[in-house]
Order: sequence, then structure tokens, then C-alpha cells
Amino acid sequence: MDQRSSPRFRRRAEMQLGIVGAGRMGANIARRLLRAGHEVVIYDSDSAAVTELETEGAVAAASLQDVVSGLDQPRAVWVMVPAAVTGAVVEEVAAMMDVDDVVIDGGNSHFRESALRADTLAERGIHYLDVGTSGGVHGLDRGYCLMVGGDETAVKRVTPIFEALAPGVDAAARTLTAEGAPTAAEQGYLHCGPAGAGHFVKMVHNGIEYGQMAALAEGLAILRGANVGAARRDDDAETAPLAAAGAYRYDLDVAEITEVWRRGSVIGSWLLDLTASALRTDPELSRYSGHVSDSGEGRWVVQAAVDEGVPAHVLTAALYERFSSRGEGEYGNKALSAMRHAFGGHHEKVTTR
Amino acid sequence: MDQRSSPRFRRRAEMQLGIVGAGRMGANIARRLLRAGHEVVIYDSDSAAVTELETEGAVAAASLQDVVSGLDQPRAVWVMVPAAVTGAVVEEVAAMMDVDDVVIDGGNSHFRESALRADTLAERGIHYLDVGTSGGVHGLDRGYCLMVGGDETAVKRVTPIFEALAPGVDAAARTLTAEGAPTAAEQGYLHCGPAGAGHFVKMVHNGIEYGQMAALAEGLAILRGANVGAARRDDDAETAPLAAAGAYRYDLDVAEITEVWRRGSVIGSWLLDLTASALRTDPELSRYSGHVSDSGEGRWVVQAAVDEGVPAHVLTAALYERFSSRGEGEYGNKALSAMRHAFGGHHEKVTTR
Amino acid sequence: MDQRSSPRFRRRAEMQLGIVGAGRMGANIARRLLRAGHEVVIYDSDSAAVTELETEGAVAAASLQDVVSGLDQPRAVWVMVPAAVTGAVVEEVAAMMDVDDVVIDGGNSHFRESALRADTLAERGIHYLDVGTSGGVHGLDRGYCLMVGGDETAVKRVTPIFEALAPGVDAAARTLTAEGAPTAAEQGYLHCGPAGAGHFVKMVHNGIEYGQMAALAEGLAILRGANVGAARRDDDAETAPLAAAGAYRYDLDVAEITEVWRRGSVIGSWLLDLTASALRTDPELSRYSGHVSDSGEGRWVVQAAVDEGVPAHVLTAALYERFSSRGEGEYGNKALSAMRHAFGGHHEKVTTR
Amino acid sequence: MDQRSSPRFRRRAEMQLGIVGAGRMGANIARRLLRAGHEVVIYDSDSAAVTELETEGAVAAASLQDVVSGLDQPRAVWVMVPAAVTGAVVEEVAAMMDVDDVVIDGGNSHFRESALRADTLAERGIHYLDVGTSGGVHGLDRGYCLMVGGDETAVKRVTPIFEALAPGVDAAARTLTAEGAPTAAEQGYLHCGPAGAGHFVKMVHNGIEYGQMAALAEGLAILRGANVGAARRDDDAETAPLAAAGAYRYDLDVAEITEVWRRGSVIGSWLLDLTASALRTDPELSRYSGHVSDSGEGRWVVQAAVDEGVPAHVLTAALYERFSSRGEGEYGNKALSAMRHAFGGHHEKVTTR
Repeated sequence: MDQRSSPRFRRRAEMQLGIVGAGRMGANIARRLLRAGHEVVIYDSDSAAVTELETEGAVAAASLQDVVSGLDQPRAVWVMVPAAVTGAVVEEVAAMMDVDDVVIDGGNSHFRESALRADTLAERGIHYLDVGTSGGVHGLDRGYCLMVGGDETAVKRVTPIFEALAPGVDAAARTLTAEGAPTAAEQGYLHCGPAGAGHFVKMVHNGIEYGQMAALAEGLAILRGANVGAARRDDDAETAPLAAAGAYRYDLDVAEITEVWRRGSVIGSWLLDLTASALRTDPELSRYSGHVSDSGEGRWVVQAAVDEGVPAHVLTAALYERFSSRGEGEYGNKALSAMRHAFGGHHEKVTTR
Repeated sequence: MDQRSSPRFRRRAEMQLGIVGAGRMGANIARRLLRAGHEVVIYDSDSAAVTELETEGAVAAASLQDVVSGLDQPRAVWVMVPAAVTGAVVEEVAAMMDVDDVVIDGGNSHFRESALRADTLAERGIHYLDVGTSGGVHGLDRGYCLMVGGDETAVKRVTPIFEALAPGVDAAARTLTAEGAPTAAEQGYLHCGPAGAGHFVKMVHNGIEYGQMAALAEGLAILRGANVGAARRDDDAETAPLAAAGAYRYDLDVAEITEVWRRGSVIGSWLLDLTASALRTDPELSRYSGHVSDSGEGRWVVQAAVDEGVPAHVLTAALYERFSSRGEGEYGNKALSAMRHAFGGHHEKVTTR
Repeated sequence: MDQRSSPRFRRRAEMQLGIVGAGRMGANIARRLLRAGHEVVIYDSDSAAVTELETEGAVAAASLQDVVSGLDQPRAVWVMVPAAVTGAVVEEVAAMMDVDDVVIDGGNSHFRESALRADTLAERGIHYLDVGTSGGVHGLDRGYCLMVGGDETAVKRVTPIFEALAPGVDAAARTLTAEGAPTAAEQGYLHCGPAGAGHFVKMVHNGIEYGQMAALAEGLAILRGANVGAARRDDDAETAPLAAAGAYRYDLDVAEITEVWRRGSVIGSWLLDLTASALRTDPELSRYSGHVSDSGEGRWVVQAAVDEGVPAHVLTAALYERFSSRGEGEYGNKALSAMRHAFGGHHEKVTTR
Repeated sequence: MDQRSSPRFRRRAEMQLGIVGAGRMGANIARRLLRAGHEVVIYDSDSAAVTELETEGAVAAASLQDVVSGLDQPRAVWVMVPAAVTGAVVEEVAAMMDVDDVVIDGGNSHFRESALRADTLAERGIHYLDVGTSGGVHGLDRGYCLMVGGDETAVKRVTPIFEALAPGVDAAARTLTAEGAPTAAEQGYLHCGPAGAGHFVKMVHNGIEYGQMAALAEGLAILRGANVGAARRDDDAETAPLAAAGAYRYDLDVAEITEVWRRGSVIGSWLLDLTASALRTDPELSRYSGHVSDSGEGRWVVQAAVDEGVPAHVLTAALYERFSSRGEGEYGNKALSAMRHAFGGHHEKVTTR
């Protein structure tokens, strides 16, 4: 039975949710819930963002306290603010809550902090759910992939929200052997385990994301370098002679190549779709400088791999490439040049491609 | 205008193609062409495979010569045999051909060999096309992504074949800014450049594939290691104490997690779909030993990166992880143990998880 | 002039030190101090180790309390026990100490724990020094390289101990521009900064050690693989054909090569000396299985790199290679095989070299 | 006994050698041979360099032909010119030679080209030796480490030259179990195998060198980043919050740390000695920009690892870090930024440290 067409689902759908944070993610989460018929009470320090959502059906709150007061008990409040302040806001919201209320941390908190926070709040009878949320700016239309950690009771209660936010089973062909009513995972949300499990799984998800982005980026760079043999090069003691320069004289259309890979190839993916789209309008990627930020999960997943003793060459290299893109390897590079000068009398040569 | 509904397209579709090789790939290529109304003359040293295709409408050939003789001039023959013999078979076929015939190398040859081979054959007036073909065993139904290198004349002539093999524009949503009649790339085939360009692009494609597979595999291993804190560990001088053992006590359902990621997440991809499917029936992956083969392109793309001077940490690490999976790092590991013993008196400790 | 025979050195040398731990490291530290004329009170739960040192001039203690009671105030006690129990033993010793006593953590504690511990002990007026100690089983003869963190007062007081343990300036040629009386660093010990700084520097030292070991080990493996072209190989769809098999037919003598590199080459190092020695008696390294342990610092330095945002591809790869050597990558490898089977119908092939 | 003062050594020392190339390496090789009593006929297109060596006892040649004519048969000529022209010069010299003459390639040629060249020259009765030469600008005083490939006859004949150039057994303590007369390897030169073996071993040597340099450089960068917690950082959605900022407040003296590591530590090495020296006069390494060149061997060793199927994460990462230091990863980085913008609406943030 498809839950969403059942009477019970409809009844459950009439849920109230408080949302703190009306940025890129929070606002779209609110919208997707409103469209599904849920009631949303929302607050953001940027009142314009809240006012806009009010016109779309949300109840505007003027403060955190307003969000909490505006909800019937037992309450559920979803905190969706920048990582740097998430912990503090969750604590602040929870401090205003009563026994059996649920606070949802939809940000990218560290799974260990989430587990500890859940324990602390549990002492006061407050449920804490950590909900890793993937989907980015496209989530409003595509739905969000939700990775949930926390206690069964709270997860069960908030499930209508998850059902509304998740993409639903039709978003992808069902896995061959899947039969019967779609599981939660097939609809796009999953109760992964106790508190912290949701953020753990989201952390690993983002690690994979870093790795897949890096694989694609490196490949594109190699495509673009395919005509390196056509460039004039100096032959001197400081430069590796190009092996078989004649072999590297292809002037490839990287944008068209990403387009062709979108159909039928083994590497078809949503990231590829987005990349093809970006390259179509800017094949030289000239609007970017190449300073790539990283956020917490990409770092934490490396630390988890190290803690677990599991080799993660690719995920880690992907992270380090971002560090390097921002010039963080400079001192080490200078040290290399200093060593080369010391043993071989080599002078630096600034290469240009 | 959709080419495929045009009169000209239909006319062009009535093409003849010789195919050498009726293995996993060759047989399905033949089938897909037969379904599209093309005429296929096929040969394989395994006559049973050929006979089976004969029942599906192919013309069976008893030898390479038979394939060539069975086609009207100018001919087109697609060679789809194991990498190790591709070069020899292509040469053999070409030796039987006449001026203006086309020989297609659909295998994973090295792009440089392809370029050289094209030059040699051009001296005799034979066209050589290198066609990187992605799609694997699913290509029959999904279509193949085709990356083509070679001269314009030959590409143009064989385009009906490419059109029939490629997935077609409907296989993916069109890229946002794409308008008008779908380009070849949007249909799933692309003339990438002169001879070698097709295999070059396929090589990079496979490198990306290695990287994305490795990113996913590493992530799954980290998920699976999430309960490492629950295992008993010896505290001794040879073992790194587990940082925060208490934090790693999640017993995650890796199969369900890959399923949930399939909808709405940033890392949705065909590889993920296949992985979710594999894990659904064998969550412990107990039917595999973990000895991962690699084929030429994964190696060549590293060499290309090195030749071009482009950093490719991720693609390379993915390749090396395969080497390690087969025990190829053993001597180096023994050397590490010998060093540890030499300076620290450390004895090896065989760990088991 | 050998400082240790100078009058000034002798006067300062008349120091008392308590040592907890008579294992590989602790016993040799005690011996080196005894030889320099210092008084050592030593305890270990293994009384045989203590008895042996008693015959060499140490004062045997029957308990931690005995060590503390056996010293004049202000006391200095060096804790040199396995990493897993270091923290607890340091706390236990400190609990028996009085204001102005010094407890030295000579183990490989995490720098952050060292800094926190120092703060806690400082509240009770106890000085805590973290002393990263390199030298391994050869330290007795070669001396130890000491990286010290903690407050100035305590460092100053214990300096005679550091002077006796360090190799002394003659252990290496002075750096070209160095003039005048050798600095502490030139003698082989350094006050690196406040508490934790010693262990931080030791952590980085060990990270470099991992990287250099791995560089050497990989190189040796490539030397050993130089005759891979001579081996029979199957050519099939699962195996990358060996490029230029004919080029890899060198049967190199790895042991002799490490020996020749010891003189005049850019890669001369103590690790190379030890490796040459190990290979001389066991060129096949047949007494090792290749399961390489790792201890905390190799992991922490990766975490520090990640925290700092500094790329550390090499140090991290070296750590992960150790994980892989112990089979920790197996689940990931199985996932790769499962993916290959899923998209390409590839079956695993167990290769043997 | 110092072999070089022995009667036997002197007798053998009366050898003639032609040298082509009077650059950094060639000139010092000439000098070291002259000091050992050998006769040197030298040529360089830069006549000033030749004139200078003439004042030191060398015979100046005005052309390649002059070098060859100036030697008694059977001749031996050492070619020591930039990698980019080595092959051509070796061929040119060999073309002027007679049966049984020896041409020595002291440059960093690819081992495969060396093997092929040897075969070609053997057809004309000319011996070709490939001599990997390590030692850099310090070789004049420290001696050179020589890795030799080629036929036995030629190696034997030129051995006096190798003996004079090599550092000699006293340059390092003998390996523990070494007894009796020092082997060639213990003196610092080794006949590694047939033609190409010398350059193969030198290639691996340089790969290890890259890896060890990178390990050291990364470690230094982590030391330098130890006070990253003291810097002001913006907390925003694009920046990973610094874990435990308080823990990273060490202002370490990197120069002093490299100095202390030179004595007693496990990572003592010649590269460390040189680094300590460089940091002593320029602790900020301000005279370097950090654009690190790479020469052929660092690339070839990666290709050899890939050909052999041996994992070489560290050597390869070291090479790629050099590529990145020169900005070669920029297009890939831009692609990452484009993807982040596409799925998350993330804007690039230019960070400065």
C-alpha cells in the first residue's frame, strides 16, 4: 500500500512544524512542507526571508520563543542554520521546550556532538533527532534525501514530515529485487540508528560526494590537457621533457563530452548532469577562480576513517585537493624548492601553461 | 527536428555492419542493431555464440574473411574482442579490406596506438574509427554511450549505427539551457576528434569510473566500520588506541543506506543504483573475495595525467587500491615491518577485525 | 671537547630521576642516565626488569609510591609506559607528588591531552613536561632526540637529564652557518614550547617517519617488480596487458642497491641504513608477513593536518597503506568487485604474482 | 685502509676519460677525477667552463670530435648534458667511435631508451653504459653514488673511474654484518644489471627522493600550521569550523626543530641536514615562491609502478603535489567550484591565511 494515498497518511500529514532558519535550505524545506499541507511556524533573524514565506502560507515568528510558543505540544522544531551556530541554536530552542518535545538538528553537526547532545537533552525528556539532509538548492523540487538518527518514538512522530520532504519512490526506478510497499529508504528517508547515526551517514555521504566530485574534476582536467603537446615548451634542466608530445594534440570539447556521458555511460550521475549544465554556458569555467571551500563533513569523514582504521585514500585526497586549491600547501612547496636548491643547485622556474 | 523520425533517418538506418566478436559486448551490440533494423554479419571463434545470434536475425560468418566478403562496399566492420587481441584482429580485418572501407575498433585500445594505426591504415585508404563504448552488460537495453575518434567521412557514414546503439535523448532530462534539435552528444554519441580521440575520452571516462567507484567503496567501508568501538581491542604498544571508542557503536544497514541515497541526494548515480541492488541480495558481499582487477584504461589515464603534468590524486589512488587489493603491495609492507623491527624492536602483530 | 667529561657537565649531572617503566625504552633511558652519573630510582610491574637495572646501578623501587618517596624534593619522575596506560600512570604519579615536583610524560600521548593534563596539574603546583623521545632501541648508544613541551622552570631544572640522554653535538656535522657554543637543538634536545608542544613535534616527527618509510618501501617494491615482464601472464578481459613487457626483465639485487644508496646519494638516511642491514640478512624479507601496525601519532598527525587545513597526501597515504596491509580495506574492495560484476558482468580473478 | 692511497689503486687510476658537458655535474665529475689522478679530456659548448677546467688540469677539447680524437683506444666518453639533449649527444659521440669504445650516459635518460640504445650501439661493437649519478652539487666533496647498467666488459674497464667518483667505504659506517673487503656497493657504486638497469635504479632512487622530500615538506607545513587556532577566522557556511581552535596555538620554531631532529631521531637524513641548513638562514623560506619543478625520473617511476602493478601512493602523491604547486590543478579546481555552485548555490570564497 502506498502510504501517501492512505487515509492515515493524510491525517498524519496535517502536522505542525517549527522551523528555525530561512536560508537556502530552511526556506525550501518550509515551502515543500507547505505544499504538502503541513503547518509551518518559521523564524529567522533575517525578517525579510520570513515575511516572504508568510506570503506563501507559513506562520511568521518573531523570535525563537515565538516558534516554540506557536506550536501545540508535543512540539517539533527543525533547526536549519549555518553549521557554526547550529549547536547553540539547538540548545537555545531545547531550553524553551517541554518534556516529550522534539528538536531536529537538520544541519551538518558532528555525529559525536549530536550523540552527546541527545544524551543531555534526554535527561530533560526532550527528544533530539539528527537529520542529515541532502539535496541542496534543488531539494524544493526534487525532494530531500533524509538520513535520520534518534529514538524510535520521535522518529515515528515526525515521519509525516520526512515523507513530505523526501522525494518519494518514483524519483528513481525501484531496485530490481524490490517488491511490495516501498520501504522508507525507497521513499528517500531512513532511520539509520540512534542519535548521531543520521549525521554519521550524512558525513559519509558528503565524503563520497567529495570523492566523486574530485574524480570528475580530475578527469575533466585531463581532457583539457589533451592538447598539451601543441604548446611550445622549453627544454631545460628544470623541466620534464614531455613524453610523446605528438600524442597530446587533441582539442577536446569538454562540455560536449560531459553531455555525451550523461546517457548510457557507467558514470552517469546527478553531479555529471550539473557539470554538463555548468560547462554548457561557461566551458572555460572562467567565472571561477578555483578556490574550493570545504565544510566540516569532508574533514570529519577522514577523521572517522582514521579512527576506524579504514583506508580512505580517495576521500582524503579529495579533501586535500581543496586545501591545495586555496594555497594551503604553499609553505610545504617552498620547503621542496629549498631542498632542491640545497642539493642540486636547482633554481625555481615559474611555469605557465 | 528529431532526426529519428525523419525520412532521411529511416533510410540511413538500413545499414550493413560486420561485427567481429560475439562476447558480452559484441553480442548485445549486434542485438541492439538488429532490433533497430540494421543488417549484421557476425563472427566469433566461439561458433555457439554466433549461432545464437543467427536465430535472432544476424548473418553468421564462419571466418573473418567471411565477414568482409559478406558486406557490400564500402564496408564497415566493428571489432569487439578482448583488449589483448584487439590490435591484431583489427589489423587482420583491415588487411582484407579495400579502399574506403571502415574498420571500427570498439575495444579499449590505447589512444596512441589507435592514432598510429589510423595513420598506417590511411596509407591504404582504409578508414579507422576508434569508438569508446560504455554501457556494459546493460547496454542492450539502456543503449551505449559512444565516444568516437576518426575522420569526418567515416564518422558520417557510420552515424546510423551510432544512432541505433546510443541511448537517445530521452534517456536523460535535457540540460536546462539545451534547445532545438538534440545534438549527437545529447543522443549519446559524440565525434570527439581525430583518430585516438574516442579512445582518449573513453580512457578518461574509465578513470573517472575508477575514482567514483573507489569513493563509493571507501564510504561504504567507513559505514561498515561505524561499530568498531563495540569490538574488543587489545591495548598494547603495537596498537593505536581507538580514539573515542564509545563514538563508534553504530550498527548501520549499509544496503538500506545505499537505497536511501538513490533519491534526492547529491550522490545519486547509476553506480549507486547498481550497488544498492548488489547489497540488497548480499549485504555482506560474501560472494566476493575483494581481489579487484583493473584493465588498461585505468592505468593509461594515470600515465596521461603524468604526461600532461595534471595532478590526479584520486584517479591514481583508485587504481593503486586495486593493486593493493590483489596483494601487490606485499613486499613493500614487509619492508615496513622490517624497518619497524630494526629501529624500534617492534614485532608484527596480525590483527583481525 | 666532549661536554660530558667537562667539570660543568659533571656538576650539573648529579641529578636524581625517578623512572616508571623498564621496558624497551625506559630501561635504556635509565642505563644512559646511569652511565652519565645520574641517580635513577626505577619501578616496573615486571620486577625482573627492575632487578636487572639494579645490578647496573639503579635504585629499585617496589611501587609507584616507592619511586616518589625515594626522591628528594623537588622531584622529577619520568613515565615511560605503553601509550594505552600512560595517562593513567602519569595521573597516579602526580597524585603522590608535592608542589613544585615535575612529572615527565615520555610516551606518545596526544598533544591536546598533554596540554589539558598540564593545566590540571598546574592547579596543584605540579609541573608537567611532555617529552617526545625518538631513538628506539638504538637510543642507549646513539642517544635520544628529545622534543620538550612545558614550562620554563621545569625544563630548566631537568636539563641535565636531557643533556645526558641527547646524542650531543658530535652526533652530526654542524650545520654550515652554525657558530659558537652549540645550542640545545644542536645537542639533540629542544624546548619546543608550552605543554603539548613536545608531543606535537614528536607527532609530526612520526608522521614524517611514516612517510619516509613508505617512500622507501614503495621504491623497493618497484625495484623488486622490475622483472615482472619475465613472468608468464594470462591475457584475458580481466587483466591489463603489461605495457612493454620486454622492458621489465631486470633481476635486481635490492639488498645491494640499498647498500649503494648509503653513500653519496641524496636519499642517505638512518632508515636506509637500517633497511640495508635488514635486507643483507633476509633479502626476501621472508620473516615478515607484511601486517604493519600503526600507533597513535601516525593517526593524530593526519587529524592535525585536517584540523589545520594543510594538505598531507603523503603522510596520510603512508598511514592508509598500513591499514590496507592489515586487510582493513577488504569490505571496500568487495564493494568494487560487486560493482564491476553489476555493470560489466566481470568475475573476480584471483591473481598471483 | 683508504683504497685510493694504495698502490693498486694508483695503477688502475691512470685512466683517460672524455667528458662531454661541463655544467654543474660534469665539471665536478671532471674535478673529482683530476684530483684522483685521472686524465680528463673535456668539451662543452660553453668554452669558458672548459677553460676553467683546463686551469685545473683537464685537457680542453674544442668539439665532440676533439674529445674522441684526443683519447687512446679503446676510448671511454662520459656524456653529462641536460636530459633533453642527452640522447642526441650520446648518439653523436657514438657515431665517431670505433669498435670496443665505451660511451657512458650519465644523465637521467629513460631506462627503456637506454636499453634500446645499448642494443643499437652493440650492433656496431660500441659499449653503452647507463650510469645513474646521485650527489648533486655536493658530489665533488662527498663523492657520487653510481648506479651502473651495461655489459660486464665495459663496466670492468671503467671501474677505476667509478672508484674515483664514488664516496668510498668510509663515507658511512659499515652495515653490521658486513665483513671482509668492502664490496663495490659499499664503496658507492654498483653494477645493477644489463643496459638500462642503472637508469632504472636511479629512477627509483629519485622517486624515493620525491617521496621523502614530500614527507618532510608536509611535516614542516603542519608544524607551521600549529598556531592556526590563534588566527581570526570567519564562521560562515563556506568555512569548516576549526575543531578545537584552542589546541592549535603553538608558535613553533621550524628551523630549530629540523636541527634537533638531526641527532638521534629516526628521521635523520641528508635531506634533513640540508633542510635545517636552509631554514637556519631563511626560516620563512621567503626566497622561494613554491613553484616546484619535476624532472623525468619522478614521472617515469610512477609509470613503472603502474606498468608493474605495484601500488605507489606516496611516490605518486609527491609528484602530483609538484604539479599542483605550479597551478596545474586549476581547471579541476574550477570544476569543483562550478559543481558546488550548481548543487548548493555555494559561492567561492577566497581564503587568505
